[in-house]
Amino acid sequence: MNLELKKYDRIIMGIDPGTNVMGYGVLGITGRKAEMIVMGVIKLNRFESHYLRLARIYERVSGIVTQYLPDELAIEAPFFGKNVQSMLKLGRAQGVAMAAALAKDIPIAEYPPLNVKKAVTGNGQASKEQVANMLKHLLSIPEEKMPDMLDATDALAVALTHFYESSKPAVAKGPKSWKDFLSQNPDRIAPRLK
Amino acid sequence: MNLELKKYDRIIMGIDPGTNVMGYGVLGITGRKAEMIVMGVIKLNRFESHYLRLARIYERVSGIVTQYLPDELAIEAPFFGKNVQSMLKLGRAQGVAMAAALAKDIPIAEYPPLNVKKAVTGNGQASKEQVANMLKHLLSIPEEKMPDMLDATDALAVALTHFYESSKPAVAKGPKSWKDFLSQNPDRIAPRLK
Repeated sequence: MNLELKKYDRIIMGIDPGTNVMGYGVLGITGRKAEMIVMGVIKLNRFESHYLRLARIYERVSGIVTQYLPDELAIEAPFFGKNVQSMLKLGRAQGVAMAAALAKDIPIAEYPPLNVKKAVTGNGQASKEQVANMLKHLLSIPEEKMPDMLDATDALAVALTHFYESSKPAVAKGPKSWKDFLSQNPDRIAPRLK
Repeated sequence: MNLELKKYDRIIMGIDPGTNVMGYGVLGITGRKAEMIVMGVIKLNRFESHYLRLARIYERVSGIVTQYLPDELAIEAPFFGKNVQSMLKLGRAQGVAMAAALAKDIPIAEYPPLNVKKAVTGNGQASKEQVANMLKHLLSIPEEKMPDMLDATDALAVALTHFYESSKPAVAKGPKSWKDFLSQNPDRIAPRLK
């Protein structure tokens, strides 16, 4: 393992999956502090064939996973607005990227774009530029390390969202129903109901 | 490599991808003869979580690829009749299965269900039972080796379709356009046009 990576308690990789460009970002966590390790994009539009794109995604995501050894993968889940054919292609691209993590037993979490924007900027309707600027501020990213393509910052944003969400104390969410409450608190069930 | 597999010129794996059940079938080719090596199903419906299903698909497809070392993978491509959310899930399941092949540089081909039915039975509207019966006959599969689930025979059918399609002389298909014809036959271009 790269010595630099050893200093982190956790490493979270984020992916903003697409069939033309796939963004990725890797966060290193030390205690409650998150730091950008790397971010970038995998450009796919120069490959005409759908298979070559899938092969490229697999190769690159596997490479990033092998290089940065993330503990978790967070992906930005799409809203369902496209037609069935493009959703099938997007699903395949995501599946191939996810397989690169599954192959190494890395757990996967996904977040809708609205939740990512809200977690990072406080506003679910924020623009990609606003997300990028907030990340720059929150993670103290120097100007020269900011990417040209916002797919990279979007990917880093989903990694940060996962850090925030997974750091929340579980109890704060509360049980969703009485059934949940009772299964989480078996000692609160009156003996005659057991 | 398994000694038994060495006798084949080519090994073709077929997959009938689904999010509840994934069928697979492996064909061994010797000259112009195709023989069933194995077929079966990966049952996914007992896993509630979408991720566990994807992880299971990756694990099983990788296992089959490692065991039978196919030279090519053929998958049955869906017609686009479902809603966007189920297409995304199906795409992911396919992507994960395809990644298991891509990880080993195995080329992938896909065929629509109609072409598979037509290639195997001569009728694009054939039922799954008719496809299964025709495979039994064509590949001389003994009754006791016929599977309970037709996802397995569907997968073997797409492998056989790929064998038929890839064995066709390329010229029989003919050029699709004048441009194709000219690029395939540069000597037929009059010198002044070159």
